[in-house]
Amino acid sequence: MTDWGQHLSKMRETAPLIQNITNYVSMNIMANVLLAAGASPAMVHAEEEAAEFASFTSALTINIGTLSAPWVRAMEGAAAAANKAGTVWVLDPVAVGATGFRRATGTKLLEYKPTIIRGNASEIMALGGMVASGKGVDSADSVEAAKAAADELANATGSIVAVTGPEDYVTDGSKAFVIANGHPTMPLVTALGCSLTGVVAAFAVGQPPLDATAAALAYYGLAGEVAAEMASGPGSFAVQFLDALHNITPEALAHGAKVQLA
Amino acid sequence: MTDWGQHLSKMRETAPLIQNITNYVSMNIMANVLLAAGASPAMVHAEEEAAEFASFTSALTINIGTLSAPWVRAMEGAAAAANKAGTVWVLDPVAVGATGFRRATGTKLLEYKPTIIRGNASEIMALGGMVASGKGVDSADSVEAAKAAADELANATGSIVAVTGPEDYVTDGSKAFVIANGHPTMPLVTALGCSLTGVVAAFAVGQPPLDATAAALAYYGLAGEVAAEMASGPGSFAVQFLDALHNITPEALAHGAKVQLA
Amino acid sequence: MTDWGQHLSKMRETAPLIQNITNYVSMNIMANVLLAAGASPAMVHAEEEAAEFASFTSALTINIGTLSAPWVRAMEGAAAAANKAGTVWVLDPVAVGATGFRRATGTKLLEYKPTIIRGNASEIMALGGMVASGKGVDSADSVEAAKAAADELANATGSIVAVTGPEDYVTDGSKAFVIANGHPTMPLVTALGCSLTGVVAAFAVGQPPLDATAAALAYYGLAGEVAAEMASGPGSFAVQFLDALHNITPEALAHGAKVQLA
Repeated sequence: MTDWGQHLSKMRETAPLIQNITNYVSMNIMANVLLAAGASPAMVHAEEEAAEFASFTSALTINIGTLSAPWVRAMEGAAAAANKAGTVWVLDPVAVGATGFRRATGTKLLEYKPTIIRGNASEIMALGGMVASGKGVDSADSVEAAKAAADELANATGSIVAVTGPEDYVTDGSKAFVIANGHPTMPLVTALGCSLTGVVAAFAVGQPPLDATAAALAYYGLAGEVAAEMASGPGSFAVQFLDALHNITPEALAHGAKVQLA
Repeated sequence: MTDWGQHLSKMRETAPLIQNITNYVSMNIMANVLLAAGASPAMVHAEEEAAEFASFTSALTINIGTLSAPWVRAMEGAAAAANKAGTVWVLDPVAVGATGFRRATGTKLLEYKPTIIRGNASEIMALGGMVASGKGVDSADSVEAAKAAADELANATGSIVAVTGPEDYVTDGSKAFVIANGHPTMPLVTALGCSLTGVVAAFAVGQPPLDATAAALAYYGLAGEVAAEMASGPGSFAVQFLDALHNITPEALAHGAKVQLA
Repeated sequence: MTDWGQHLSKMRETAPLIQNITNYVSMNIMANVLLAAGASPAMVHAEEEAAEFASFTSALTINIGTLSAPWVRAMEGAAAAANKAGTVWVLDPVAVGATGFRRATGTKLLEYKPTIIRGNASEIMALGGMVASGKGVDSADSVEAAKAAADELANATGSIVAVTGPEDYVTDGSKAFVIANGHPTMPLVTALGCSLTGVVAAFAVGQPPLDATAAALAYYGLAGEVAAEMASGPGSFAVQFLDALHNITPEALAHGAKVQLA
């Protein structure tokens, strides 16, 4: 039986520096999530320094949730630097199907070959060029429907593709895992998906990206399960969730991970 | 007796998509407030996409708390798109009297005929062209003193005008309500006023805006009352407040709303 | 024996208006920290208004955590206005050694003579022109090693210099205090250092800056100690920390402050 907890202990041993170019809504919670998990976050997005920083960070994440022209330039520069340095980078294509500006940016960033792409079902389907009924940043398509799109996107890009939702799916195009951890309160706390992207990046530093992503998804969902036991609404859930990310041990993850080959 | 709870149940049935162009301080808590209440938030403010998004959103809010030139262009584009599409939009004129840049922006946005204007006493008085002793973003004028300014502003603009504070007042210029729900800890949590603007927008989708605003203010204040019973300071208050927004039922609102004709 | 609590009561009596040009990650928590402490925050950073606002604020803080060209112009304008008006202003040189853009900005801002400079050991050493092993925004150098750099920086600039970490050190170049309050969970909550900069500014309004800074550091660390007693992880710690900032009395600070002449 696979020990998914080992990926958590390896991540905590190195406490990798994760550079995040992420939307304004998520910056604070994403930094807190990464600190609670055991990584070291840096929110560096200015076009004057994003590429320089990306040349020495342990991993990079790019989230297109709140875009502007200078940010797109910073994203391209950072993605190019990460790609050149062979650094893990993760793309989070928030609401990529919602506007022309997002579609253009999403397509452009794929050229820099993200190590991993993480989105909800609508986002992965939109990015895969399929028709998705996107409504805002929440997902209107099921993970099930997005699996084929994810495999296709993985094969077309060479990226690991993760689709997250009530059930998660992660694939390299030929091998895939389904992760059943999680809790229905998670979508009621804003930017938990964005923050997960950082955790995926942290796990993937120095670890095989498909397995590391599966472990990160299980860890994150397990924290949601633990938090729900103590919470009485989305406010207290968010607090308990950060505590759980900090308190879950590799042993608890090994025991609680619900990961299966797809 | 009016059933104010029905406005909450109608809002939750449609879970309206609320586009928010809001200040950086408020983005996270505002999204969490809207999710806890039962709406679907989208923080979309880039000039490249704000107007496009505003053409299909259920409602739009514009908050001038953290301004810059590109944002003002995005605000104008989005307000124009909402106005053209007949979409509910709510103006939150944060500290509108504090600097020349804010005064100019506030005046400009009024041209796009907001459905509702929500501010504190100083802001409504400043917007109404009266002399207000504004100090930062907190209110130095009483709600009482702002009532005349609110009626005048409503008549001049055709907007519903809501003045919030220890006691709230909402008017269409001829008919008005006073709402006595709320708690003194609320101003100790930053951006709860900004977040309220989103809740007002959510309630006003497909509902008469004067009554919907009164119901939203009562709901929000009631959540503050519930939160205060469990809190031991502003940190725990914020957590309990989100839980209360999620847990208050239409029946509880019908029972707890303190709304009277002015 | 010095009554450090008097600095807290004086700050709360005036509830000073603190203008903050700070990074996006910190804006919300910094505003909540200032409100909980008893000050009045205003996050005003646009180049169109930052200098105008700085001409009438009680104090100003400038944090270089998330930079861009327009922000640097706003920072310079605001710092110049504060300097001209004789207003207290505090520089927070976040990760100043990490990129060329940050180094240039940090150096430029020193010309406007900050009243106080607050950073971690790596930042103070980088700003002092010494070699620091900076990794992201977390500190890789000990407070001990930074003491000489702090004294030198204080003498070179005329600023009060505070180095914060497991133990804090604040100096005017000849007289210095060591503050032993605090808790190891504090670095696991993002932007608590940034937020502290605001509290230092609030204490320094109308009070001698060296003593006021020492009192602010003791107060902040004491809140961390109180929070840790109730917390079960970094999520609940952050909540309890805000409650503690609000609930600590001047008497409790006088009793709990661990400040000694260096």
